[in-house]
Amino acid sequence: MPTLYIANKNYSSWSLRPWVLLRERGIAFAERLEPFAGKSFTTFSPSGKVPCLVDGDTTVWDSLAISEYLAEQHPGVWPAAAKARAFARCAAAEMHSGFMALREQCGMNCGLRVQLHRIDAALQRDLTRLEALWNDGLARFGGPFLAGVEFSAADAFYAPVAFRIQTYAPPLGSAANAYAQRLLALPSMREWYASSLAETWRHAGHEAEVARWGTITSDLRAR
Amino acid sequence: MPTLYIANKNYSSWSLRPWVLLRERGIAFAERLEPFAGKSFTTFSPSGKVPCLVDGDTTVWDSLAISEYLAEQHPGVWPAAAKARAFARCAAAEMHSGFMALREQCGMNCGLRVQLHRIDAALQRDLTRLEALWNDGLARFGGPFLAGVEFSAADAFYAPVAFRIQTYAPPLGSAANAYAQRLLALPSMREWYASSLAETWRHAGHEAEVARWGTITSDLRAR
Repeated sequence: MPTLYIANKNYSSWSLRPWVLLRERGIAFAERLEPFAGKSFTTFSPSGKVPCLVDGDTTVWDSLAISEYLAEQHPGVWPAAAKARAFARCAAAEMHSGFMALREQCGMNCGLRVQLHRIDAALQRDLTRLEALWNDGLARFGGPFLAGVEFSAADAFYAPVAFRIQTYAPPLGSAANAYAQRLLALPSMREWYASSLAETWRHAGHEAEVARWGTITSDLRAR
Repeated sequence: MPTLYIANKNYSSWSLRPWVLLRERGIAFAERLEPFAGKSFTTFSPSGKVPCLVDGDTTVWDSLAISEYLAEQHPGVWPAAAKARAFARCAAAEMHSGFMALREQCGMNCGLRVQLHRIDAALQRDLTRLEALWNDGLARFGGPFLAGVEFSAADAFYAPVAFRIQTYAPPLGSAANAYAQRLLALPSMREWYASSLAETWRHAGHEAEVARWGTITSDLRAR
């Protein structure tokens, strides 16, 4: 059984991706949570970053590489149909390398609710592209997930966006909001969210960074 | 035969990755070069970005997704051995999402030679990690490529770094420099380089951006 190293659930959007993929695909794994503490994670991860999957003597230290590693052993990580699979991989890879304004200005912080000061041009571009990509996938493959009837790694890569939408409520159309709600309602996402709210550890600087971009209107986390 | 849309060879590091992969793996394709011109490429690419591979009615708009798409049809895109394959995918994915300081401060511009003003902490971190990753792969799998005897997508993802090293000569050890030289000596890389030097089109702002980080000591491109 592989071990998935992750960081704090409230903050670590990259950790969430393979975690929710493993849960939704029913793949057994041991979770090991290592809190951010101003250190890198070089004792177990070559890049010093999470997530990192350790399976016997194989270490897989990137979220997208973890998805491909799991896909070799388990069905359903990517869609079975070739066109849907190509789309799903593009969707996941586009998030892996992009959406920088969304990631910076709407940093994942599951327990907060934030009123953004403004939607600047860079954030609006990301939101417009996000919505186009989601609507394209949902229309072409029929939903309810991005590349068809089953939850795939493409959905896992956008799972943190669902929490960002819950926190920041950026302007999005009804189809995109409905898809985000669908992700938030998954048992695995509800479990992650409950754990994130229960965390009492705070990442120095993260809340201050959030406050650069908006007004924190509530904090639902345990104290 | 698929069509690979790319942008200017002097500038487009993302275009180079699948291009050199296709060439080194001997996969036939039609090249279509669309110069950067302050526009996005939404007429053929959903994200508005290059590279974009169009194969019949399937469009694959991300470099890493293109690699996986090709890997389903052609041997050798990833190493055949499972451990080397997991490493190669991690290496490629780490570049896909990371090395931001290297990518910003040493932007690919094949025809220039540049003396960097300084190596700041962020760039040094990227160089240290780059060298560790390269040395790890070369040592574990025996070279001459990152994941063994054959050129794989992992090497393709670091091919732009070889041009950056040629342009900026950042401080790196002999093994890393030798690996970069090995990439630059590949027939496909020499062909790309010759084409980049022959380009007369200039990307407004790119040379100014380079000049923020260093002094341009020569420009080998055609005028």
